[in-house]
Amino acid sequence: MTEGFQRIRLTLAYEGTDFCGWQRQPRDPSVQETLEGVLSRIHGQAVTVTASGRTDSGVHAQGQVVHFDAPPISLPPERYPLACNSLLPPSVRVLSAGAAAPDFHARYQAVCRVYRYRLAFGPAPLPEEARWCWHRRRRPELRRLNALCRPLLGTHDFTTFTAAGDPSESKVRRIYSAAFFPRGSEIIFEIGGNAFLWRMVRSLTGTILELEEKGGLLEQLAPAMARRLEAQERGLAGTSAPARGLSLHRVFYKGEPNGYFW
Amino acid sequence: MTEGFQRIRLTLAYEGTDFCGWQRQPRDPSVQETLEGVLSRIHGQAVTVTASGRTDSGVHAQGQVVHFDAPPISLPPERYPLACNSLLPPSVRVLSAGAAAPDFHARYQAVCRVYRYRLAFGPAPLPEEARWCWHRRRRPELRRLNALCRPLLGTHDFTTFTAAGDPSESKVRRIYSAAFFPRGSEIIFEIGGNAFLWRMVRSLTGTILELEEKGGLLEQLAPAMARRLEAQERGLAGTSAPARGLSLHRVFYKGEPNGYFW
Repeated sequence: MTEGFQRIRLTLAYEGTDFCGWQRQPRDPSVQETLEGVLSRIHGQAVTVTASGRTDSGVHAQGQVVHFDAPPISLPPERYPLACNSLLPPSVRVLSAGAAAPDFHARYQAVCRVYRYRLAFGPAPLPEEARWCWHRRRRPELRRLNALCRPLLGTHDFTTFTAAGDPSESKVRRIYSAAFFPRGSEIIFEIGGNAFLWRMVRSLTGTILELEEKGGLLEQLAPAMARRLEAQERGLAGTSAPARGLSLHRVFYKGEPNGYFW
Repeated sequence: MTEGFQRIRLTLAYEGTDFCGWQRQPRDPSVQETLEGVLSRIHGQAVTVTASGRTDSGVHAQGQVVHFDAPPISLPPERYPLACNSLLPPSVRVLSAGAAAPDFHARYQAVCRVYRYRLAFGPAPLPEEARWCWHRRRRPELRRLNALCRPLLGTHDFTTFTAAGDPSESKVRRIYSAAFFPRGSEIIFEIGGNAFLWRMVRSLTGTILELEEKGGLLEQLAPAMARRLEAQERGLAGTSAPARGLSLHRVFYKGEPNGYFW
C-alpha cells in the first residue's frame, strides 16, 4: 500500500438488474465501474476497489464487501456512506464503512459467503417481486426442499453444479449451511460456504426445485441429490435458476465473531 | 350494459413508480391507459375500465379491483390473467379475473378499501426497498405508533388530513382498522376504511411518524392525535409521507365475506 494511504472497507447493497455484474467490462455498466467512478470523484484521483467476489449479471447484493486504499488527508471512514450515496445511483448503496488493517483483503480473507435466493408463488409475478424473485406457480414443500439440501453440507467436489467455463482448478468447496425457510409469502434459500463455483448457487437452486417437483417419497430425496453430487457430472444438474432471484447476502471474515460457520 | 356483453371483474397489482397514477392523463402514461390498451387489443375494439378508486402518481397496488364489459363471444373469464399479462409491462399484473353480475360496479359497490404503507430503516435505503418504502434512519416504537392510531377508528371528519383540492363535499369517512405491525425489518401501516380523502393516508402516516418522534409520554399521544383530528384544520397535519411507500392493498365488496370490517 502506498505511504500515507488508508485501507477502507465498505459494505454494499446493489440491484444487479441493470448491471453486467460486479466486474468491469469494456462496454456494459458494472457495479465496480460505478463505485470506482464515485470514489475517484470524491478523491480527485483514480481509485480501484477489490470485492469479496464477483457477482454475475442480474445478481444482487445486500452484503458485498470491498476494500480500497484512500489517499492521505481524505474523508474520515464513517463519512463514506453519505458521501458515496449522494453520488451513486439508487441501485447501489454503501451501507457501512470503516478503517481496515493495512493487510485486510476483501477477497482473500473472506472465509464464508452467504447467498440468498428468493422464490415467489402465485398466479403471476407481482411487480414488487419481478426484479428480485424467481416466480413459480406451484409452492414447493419446505420439508422436501430441506431434505434435498442435506447432502450438500460439508466438503465436496461440486463439479455437477458448475457451469462450463468455471476457471477454478479445484471444484472442492465447503458448505456450512443450506436451508429453505418461509418469509411472508415467499420461500428463501440461504446457503453459506467458504466459496462457490461459477453459477453454482443457481444450479443448486434449479436442481433442488426440479427434484422437489418430480415427486417421489420424502426419504428418497436426499439420496437422489447425493447421487447427482457424487457423480461429478455437469449433465446431472437441473436447469439453473434465473439470476434475478439471487443475492450475495453476507460475507464473513477471518478472526471476526460470526456464530455462523465452523 | 350493451346486449350480449359480459361484465368482468379483474384484480390488479401494479408498481406506480413510472405512472402518473391510475387515471388517464393527456400526456403521461397511466395504469388505466395501459390496461385499456391491452384489453382493447385483445378484443379488437375499444374497452373502458372502471376502478375501485384512483391511485396517485407513484402509489402502487396489490389489490386494485376494476370492471369492464367484454364484447360477446370473447375470452372465458379465467383466461384474462394470462392473456393480459403476456401483453402488459411487468409493472402491471392481472392477478385474477371472474365473471361479475351485470350491475357489479368496482367503485360504487366497494365498501372497504385497505391501504398499506411500508416503512424501512437503517443507514441507507436498500435498492430493493427504494421504490416501495419510505426510508427513515430512526426506527419508531410500535406501541407509540399504535397509540397514535387509536383516535382514527370510527366515523370522523378528516378535514385535517386531506390536501387542498380534494373534491369531496363531505370529509366524513369511517375507519375500520388502523395499525402498525412489523414485517421482517420493516414496519407496515395498514388502514382500512369505507373511503379516503385525497392524500389522506399519506397525511395520516406523516403526522403519526412526526408525533411519534416528537417525544412525550405514551399516554399523551392518543389525545394529541385526537386534538388534531377534532380541530378540522389542515394546518395541523404533519408533512405527508411520500407516495412510493403506499399501496392499495385490498378492496372489499358488499355482500362478500371478509371478516374485516363491521
